[in-house]
Amino acid sequence: MANKSLSVPKGTRDFGPEVMAKRNYILDVIKSTFIKFGFSQIETPSMELLETLTGKYGEEGDQLLYKILDSGDFLKSVQENDLKEGAKKLSTKIASKGLRYDLTVPFARFVANNYHQLTIPFKRFQIQPVWRADRPQKGRYREFYQCDADVVGSESLLLESEIVLMIRDVFSQLKLEDYTIKINNRKILSAFADVINAKEQESSLFVAIDKLDKIGIDKVVDELQNKGFTTEQTNEVRKFLAISGSNIQKIQEIETLFTTNNISTEGVEELKEIFTLLDSYQYQDNKVEVDFTLARGLSYYTGAIFEVKVNNVSIGSVSGGGRYDNLTGMMGLEGVTGVGFSFGIDRVYDVLEELQLFPQENLQQTQVLITHFEKAQQLYACQVANQIRAKGISCEIYPDSTKIKKQFQYANKKNIGHVIVIGDEEIKTGKLVLKDLSSGQQENLTLEEIIAKIA
Amino acid sequence: MANKSLSVPKGTRDFGPEVMAKRNYILDVIKSTFIKFGFSQIETPSMELLETLTGKYGEEGDQLLYKILDSGDFLKSVQENDLKEGAKKLSTKIASKGLRYDLTVPFARFVANNYHQLTIPFKRFQIQPVWRADRPQKGRYREFYQCDADVVGSESLLLESEIVLMIRDVFSQLKLEDYTIKINNRKILSAFADVINAKEQESSLFVAIDKLDKIGIDKVVDELQNKGFTTEQTNEVRKFLAISGSNIQKIQEIETLFTTNNISTEGVEELKEIFTLLDSYQYQDNKVEVDFTLARGLSYYTGAIFEVKVNNVSIGSVSGGGRYDNLTGMMGLEGVTGVGFSFGIDRVYDVLEELQLFPQENLQQTQVLITHFEKAQQLYACQVANQIRAKGISCEIYPDSTKIKKQFQYANKKNIGHVIVIGDEEIKTGKLVLKDLSSGQQENLTLEEIIAKIA
Repeated sequence: MANKSLSVPKGTRDFGPEVMAKRNYILDVIKSTFIKFGFSQIETPSMELLETLTGKYGEEGDQLLYKILDSGDFLKSVQENDLKEGAKKLSTKIASKGLRYDLTVPFARFVANNYHQLTIPFKRFQIQPVWRADRPQKGRYREFYQCDADVVGSESLLLESEIVLMIRDVFSQLKLEDYTIKINNRKILSAFADVINAKEQESSLFVAIDKLDKIGIDKVVDELQNKGFTTEQTNEVRKFLAISGSNIQKIQEIETLFTTNNISTEGVEELKEIFTLLDSYQYQDNKVEVDFTLARGLSYYTGAIFEVKVNNVSIGSVSGGGRYDNLTGMMGLEGVTGVGFSFGIDRVYDVLEELQLFPQENLQQTQVLITHFEKAQQLYACQVANQIRAKGISCEIYPDSTKIKKQFQYANKKNIGHVIVIGDEEIKTGKLVLKDLSSGQQENLTLEEIIAKIA
Repeated sequence: MANKSLSVPKGTRDFGPEVMAKRNYILDVIKSTFIKFGFSQIETPSMELLETLTGKYGEEGDQLLYKILDSGDFLKSVQENDLKEGAKKLSTKIASKGLRYDLTVPFARFVANNYHQLTIPFKRFQIQPVWRADRPQKGRYREFYQCDADVVGSESLLLESEIVLMIRDVFSQLKLEDYTIKINNRKILSAFADVINAKEQESSLFVAIDKLDKIGIDKVVDELQNKGFTTEQTNEVRKFLAISGSNIQKIQEIETLFTTNNISTEGVEELKEIFTLLDSYQYQDNKVEVDFTLARGLSYYTGAIFEVKVNNVSIGSVSGGGRYDNLTGMMGLEGVTGVGFSFGIDRVYDVLEELQLFPQENLQQTQVLITHFEKAQQLYACQVANQIRAKGISCEIYPDSTKIKKQFQYANKKNIGHVIVIGDEEIKTGKLVLKDLSSGQQENLTLEEIIAKIA
């Protein structure tokens, strides 16, 4: 009988043991990489004051904030009239806290609040759930983890280049091989808008350009013409979008375009320095691709812009980031520059699943199950388990003395690699039966031999 | 100038890098121990439907639930009259979800919802924050982590004994030595109530007994007399509370008391079996102590009861647990027995801090900082960093070419163990300066020598 109270709220998920082990596999790789590059983990509270959150995500974002009803008599300052003014108004009187919508605003609040205690440049990473009252659909949840790494307080482009290195390191550990790290610079986009005298219509221009992948050049041009761009302008857009070739060729083309028009090439210089740094790191593969059409996060990014796409999978965009010159400005602390990026954990998970890249073993399963027929054998199993665990091998004793078949079913269902069988004969001889469940092979071995084999 | 929006909500905390590294140190030990004993991690959503949460924690608990305002027009089915009925009534119309109050109810919901997919016995652990609209005070927060491990679906007392082993394993890894694992059994408490004909006043009896530590035997007796217990009864209570000696002596005394009164000794038999099992595990130390006055969680525990106290610290109770025969009954699934325990992470943290047991090193800090005087040296630093990181050593390059003193300050503030200095001379000779910041010692070494030294 369906019991409604057994469901989770719409758009949220339980993570059972298998899914959780896979998520941990991804997160452990990411965490250890961040630490290897000198980033420190922080956590901020799930709740923030609504005054901290409101107005930071645009009007649409404000509507997606989850608000928490004040505890106690939240109606004490509410008048009958307030009800008539509608939900939005009333909510400000009965809710003073909200659930965090992302990790960026809490991080900005944290930095502004603790700036003088922090070691600057401050390199932090943060992996926590966020909540959005969005309409749930495939791949979009109301509760999901974000996983961000940022450095604030240094303009050095070394940090941009290390973002590329970290992505590469993480993907290499995850055995993800076919991907592209796209890189652009906000200043190049702005300079191009300048080239075609479209400074005032920057956002229309970039929104259209960003759609190139999905709708093609002709429809981009159509959209721009509908927004009032002249043919002269859209012809320049066609040229800009047609820039192709190797990274070096692309950079040369854009330099020519800017030099001819006497436009600042600051963004191009930054791009070139990032490549120089990557060369110094002896970063040899061809994963990084200059893409002048990459136009994400333009309301906050001011320098480099990154996006990482896994090729030949259904949803490939798994990571992104960029430099922002004024992270904490919204919190009243001006002039703190930063650069950061984030991994979309759910996306990475789906990609590894689709490409069947999750390891079959060692995903936090138990390595050995000890089975037995009766009480006395179980007592013997205790010291066996003790010695196995002392070597750091994960081990369980089947808790009940029940049919051996049931115990083996337990091992199979939990994907446990090895089963030890303890019977009276085994206790007498000290040679235990070890069965490898993947090969089906069975041997009589001493405990020392078993440990050596499994460890 | 104080900016109110920079604060976190009352009763919540930011965890900065140092605190977070210490918390991770504790959690990593606990997690790896759970995994070593065959427990699998799960996570449940932060939000649950209010119908799942309400009524599970008593009336007081219901008041401490954080409720989430329904998104969109939450007033659409609210009438003016509803306002008059007060906050409690109105909240049911405008909030259908709440934040989880503990991990037990979500776990019960998870088990009831997925019972037929789970591998039974199901061994899970869960480490997630919970929220309570409590009055914040020292050591009591509105958001805090719980860390639970439970097994459902087996009555085997092996599971109780493994709880003792896991606590011992965790504490040994944390270098916590002076602690006591107190153990009792709910059935012994019930049987004793039977001995003194106080079956109907069980809860008054146990509430008073549980206070023995704090108020002493005379005040316990006073309290019982005020509740209507006779002198004959309180004299028996005096005898019960006076039971002392070794675990074996205590068990013998209670057996005599029960046999004389012809009362069931089931609880005593369970206790004895747990000790037999611990012996089989060759559990030799004297940390486990039978304590018949331990009377916590009596509304849900039905068998063994545990409490772990660290001795000679200000707040010593850091872990507790027990067996419950009907975890999922509240979710409509009867007859699922379970046993579990939890670590109070904030408490363990405070204890390690008080006893200065946190390791000074390797708390996820960067191991090496590479410093330099100018751009060309920084480019050289890139490949140095590359090779160091390839050995799994965490390493940073100071991002800006600035005064060397400032770079060393950065290393000191981040508690980085070693600094490499790269100047022109070092690049020419291939011998880099390595400074050990704890000893102050400085050497000229090749990169290979440096890696060998640090790794």
